[in-house]
Amino acid sequence: MSSEIKRRGLMLVLSSPSGAGKTTLSRRLLESDGSIVMSVSATTRAMRPNEVEGRDYFFVSKEKFQAMAKAGEFLEHATVFGNSYGTPARPVMGALAAGRDVLFDIDWQGAQQLKEKARDDLVSVFILPPSHDELERRLHTRAQDSEDVVRARMEKAAGEISHWPEYDYVIVNRDVDIAHTQIKSVLEAERVRRTRQIGLSEFVSALTGGE
Amino acid sequence: MSSEIKRRGLMLVLSSPSGAGKTTLSRRLLESDGSIVMSVSATTRAMRPNEVEGRDYFFVSKEKFQAMAKAGEFLEHATVFGNSYGTPARPVMGALAAGRDVLFDIDWQGAQQLKEKARDDLVSVFILPPSHDELERRLHTRAQDSEDVVRARMEKAAGEISHWPEYDYVIVNRDVDIAHTQIKSVLEAERVRRTRQIGLSEFVSALTGGE
Repeated sequence: MSSEIKRRGLMLVLSSPSGAGKTTLSRRLLESDGSIVMSVSATTRAMRPNEVEGRDYFFVSKEKFQAMAKAGEFLEHATVFGNSYGTPARPVMGALAAGRDVLFDIDWQGAQQLKEKARDDLVSVFILPPSHDELERRLHTRAQDSEDVVRARMEKAAGEISHWPEYDYVIVNRDVDIAHTQIKSVLEAERVRRTRQIGLSEFVSALTGGE
Repeated sequence: MSSEIKRRGLMLVLSSPSGAGKTTLSRRLLESDGSIVMSVSATTRAMRPNEVEGRDYFFVSKEKFQAMAKAGEFLEHATVFGNSYGTPARPVMGALAAGRDVLFDIDWQGAQQLKEKARDDLVSVFILPPSHDELERRLHTRAQDSEDVVRARMEKAAGEISHWPEYDYVIVNRDVDIAHTQIKSVLEAERVRRTRQIGLSEFVSALTGGE
C-alpha cells in the first residue's frame, strides 16, 4: 500500500495589455481544465447588462469594500478611475487547500500584491500580442474610436507591457491554439513541481520500505 | 516589423531508479518532439550486441577517456564498477546554442555535476514508480533472478530514489501516457519561461514603439 500524494492548488496569474487575447485564453483554459477555477473579484462599480453577481464580480458598496479592505479580507485590491476592485482571500484559500487551482485575470499591480502575500503558490504568465500592428488593430477593433483614443490606449498598453520582466513565463499570442497549449503546459508542469506536492516523503518511504 | 525572439535550448535531465519506466518515457519524448535530442555519453565499457557507436554511446579507450576528462571535455563523468561514463560538453553546448533541447538519462550524481556547470540551463525531473509492489515486480521481470539479487536491486533503487528532493519536478509513473504528457508539459512550459527567451526586450520595444 503506497501512501497518497496530495497537491496544494496554485494561483495562476495571467496578465496582459488589452488586445492580447487574454480573455479568450482564460475562457479556453477554464473550459479545458476541470480543476482550475476563476477568482471572482469584488468591485464597487455598477453592474453592467449581462453581468451576473458572483460570476463576473461580487458587487459591493463602497462602505462594504472599505470594511473588507480594513479587515484584511483582500489578497490584492486597487482603485481605478474611482472604482475599487479586490480579490477576496477566503474563497481562494479554500480552493487551494482543496487542491484546486485558481486563475487570476489581474494587472501587474495586482500580481505584485499577490506575490507579496503568496509567493510559493503563485505562477505568473504574461501574454504579449504578436506585433505592434496587430496590437494597434486590436485596440481599434475594440471600439470605433478616434486616433487619439487609440493612441491613449496604446500608451496604457505600453505601460502594462513594461512589466513583463516581473513574470515567470512570457507567451506571445501569435496563434491562439498554440498560446492555449503553452498556458496549459505551464499549469500541468507547475502541478508536478516537487515543491507543490504534499506527502512525497511519505510516498517515497512506502516505496522503498515496502509499507 | 517586430523583432525575433530566440530561445536558448535547455537541458532536460530525467533520473529514476531502474524499473520506473524512464527508458520508455525518454524514447516517447524523443519521438514526440522534434526539437529535443538525446545526449550521447562516452564510455570505456565494451560495446554490446545491438549497440551502435554514436547512437548508444561513443566507445572510447580508458586512455582516451582519461585524456578527455583531464582536458575538461566532460560536463559530468563517473566510474561505475570499473567502467567510466561521461557526457562530452561540445555537442551539448552546440545544440543549446542552436536552440535545441538536450535530454539526459543520467543518475543523481550526473545531475548534480551538471547542475554545478549549467544551473540556468538545467531542468530536472525525477520519475518514481507507482508503488513498492510494482517496483519489486519490475525489478523481478527485468531478469529471472534470486530474491537476493532482487533485494540488492531494490537497495540500489532506494539509494537512487533518496535523491528525489534535489529535482525540480517529480512525476509518479502510474500511467505511461499521463507521465509522458507531464514530461512534455514540463518541456513546453520551460521553453516559455521568461529567462530562457532571448530578445524579449527588443521584441517588447518594437511592440510598443512601433519599430
